[in-house]
Amino acid sequence: MKVITDIKQMKDTIKSLKKEGKSVGFVPTMGYLHQGHLSLLECSKKENDITVLSIFVNPLQFGKNEDLDRYPRDFERDKNMAKDADIIFYPDYKDMYPQDFQTYVEVVELTKGLCGAYRPGHFRGVTTVVMKLFNIVNPDRAYFGKKDYQQYIVIKQMVKDLNMDIEIIGCPIVREEDGLAMSSRNKYLSEEERKQATGISKALFKAKEEFEKGERNPEKLKEIAKNVLYSYPLINLQYLEIVDGETLKQKQIVEKGDIMAIAVYVGNTRLIDNVEF
Amino acid sequence: MKVITDIKQMKDTIKSLKKEGKSVGFVPTMGYLHQGHLSLLECSKKENDITVLSIFVNPLQFGKNEDLDRYPRDFERDKNMAKDADIIFYPDYKDMYPQDFQTYVEVVELTKGLCGAYRPGHFRGVTTVVMKLFNIVNPDRAYFGKKDYQQYIVIKQMVKDLNMDIEIIGCPIVREEDGLAMSSRNKYLSEEERKQATGISKALFKAKEEFEKGERNPEKLKEIAKNVLYSYPLINLQYLEIVDGETLKQKQIVEKGDIMAIAVYVGNTRLIDNVEF
Repeated sequence: MKVITDIKQMKDTIKSLKKEGKSVGFVPTMGYLHQGHLSLLECSKKENDITVLSIFVNPLQFGKNEDLDRYPRDFERDKNMAKDADIIFYPDYKDMYPQDFQTYVEVVELTKGLCGAYRPGHFRGVTTVVMKLFNIVNPDRAYFGKKDYQQYIVIKQMVKDLNMDIEIIGCPIVREEDGLAMSSRNKYLSEEERKQATGISKALFKAKEEFEKGERNPEKLKEIAKNVLYSYPLINLQYLEIVDGETLKQKQIVEKGDIMAIAVYVGNTRLIDNVEF
Repeated sequence: MKVITDIKQMKDTIKSLKKEGKSVGFVPTMGYLHQGHLSLLECSKKENDITVLSIFVNPLQFGKNEDLDRYPRDFERDKNMAKDADIIFYPDYKDMYPQDFQTYVEVVELTKGLCGAYRPGHFRGVTTVVMKLFNIVNPDRAYFGKKDYQQYIVIKQMVKDLNMDIEIIGCPIVREEDGLAMSSRNKYLSEEERKQATGISKALFKAKEEFEKGERNPEKLKEIAKNVLYSYPLINLQYLEIVDGETLKQKQIVEKGDIMAIAVYVGNTRLIDNVEF
């Protein structure tokens, strides 16, 4: 496993690998890795000759009052966890965003709802950095966790709209034993918050159970999930929506493949999760 | 010379040419070719194994009240004029912009002044389509005329900011014998308008002459140019600016390499031009 920090060196490395006919898989991350990231890595290793994992806490995707400053960072820990990657790309902020940087990529429709409605500029930051990383790493396939379901769909749209030759692969959410979706932000939770955070997935699973028993009314399914959440007083709901799994449009009648997506605050920590019906 | 209309076929053709080690030069145009375009073609042919010229009138870069509908189109004429190109890429609107298209690329600072101030959304349309074309044609070098000086600088910035491996080459303005910069829009001019349109370059050349004699005050140089324009009553000035040739920022003292840029209406026809001091 090789660590590359220089953008040009990263490009040159990929160019010579491609000349040898190697396929490249890519796992972009903001570091502080967990089993969710490692499942992406594993997926990529199965499907590609070379796997690049990037670690870059991208300021562009954080709002002014969000957690950029306290976002957990531990490169040595990440390096140990990602030793199955062939290359870790770990660029500098000043190289990614030189002083005269001023170009942004934006997907305008799919980013209007869900997290996009509560985090203005977030997805513009995501698509911009992912476009940059794609152009640097030039992957054949890129892997995104479905915990960030909207992000996954938005990036698929960007790649399609801008005629990029990259296969975007969404991988299943990885959960703690008690159901909490893995997230670097789980680290923020106090002991009591961590306990109550299980309510998030419990609510989603309960709604899914009722869907499987035949309930197709989105308002009823949301009510069912909300009733679960009421038992967890530290959870404050930001949104709970049922949307089409491709268009992210709200549904009148719930169908297989639709997504129930949720964002909550547990104390000061914002967490998201979803289930596919 | 081969005409390709299908995006996938264009991509596959380039892929196999690249596998053979061929370098690719690219000349994106909106068609209705003139000697300016042909000079780009010539430049590309000298510097690359294969030259692709694209013809696509990009609706995204036209404002609501602009000339999209009447923009001159004549594919047979263009095909004859561009027979030195190895490939003409002539995609369909519906393939370039499917119904769910929603991704835009925007350079935010360099597009604030000059034409950007008068044509909101224009450069967003340009950078978006150029990004798409770059991803389809995958060129090593791309050629832009310096008549559209701001466009050339904006695209250079996009490529740098988004870490694309494409060399952007700006080629000199090609002029009619009487000095009028070549433009597909010159076709719109009536006989009398066409005569008076010579005033545009005459004004710029007069300012450049005075610069060469030692004048360094931007206000005085602009005054000199404006005084020339006063003799051409059909010319209505939209803007006349002196800017740095790289940052496009206005100058207090004019230096070599700075640009005097002008936009005018001659009757209903908007024309632009510039000179480098």
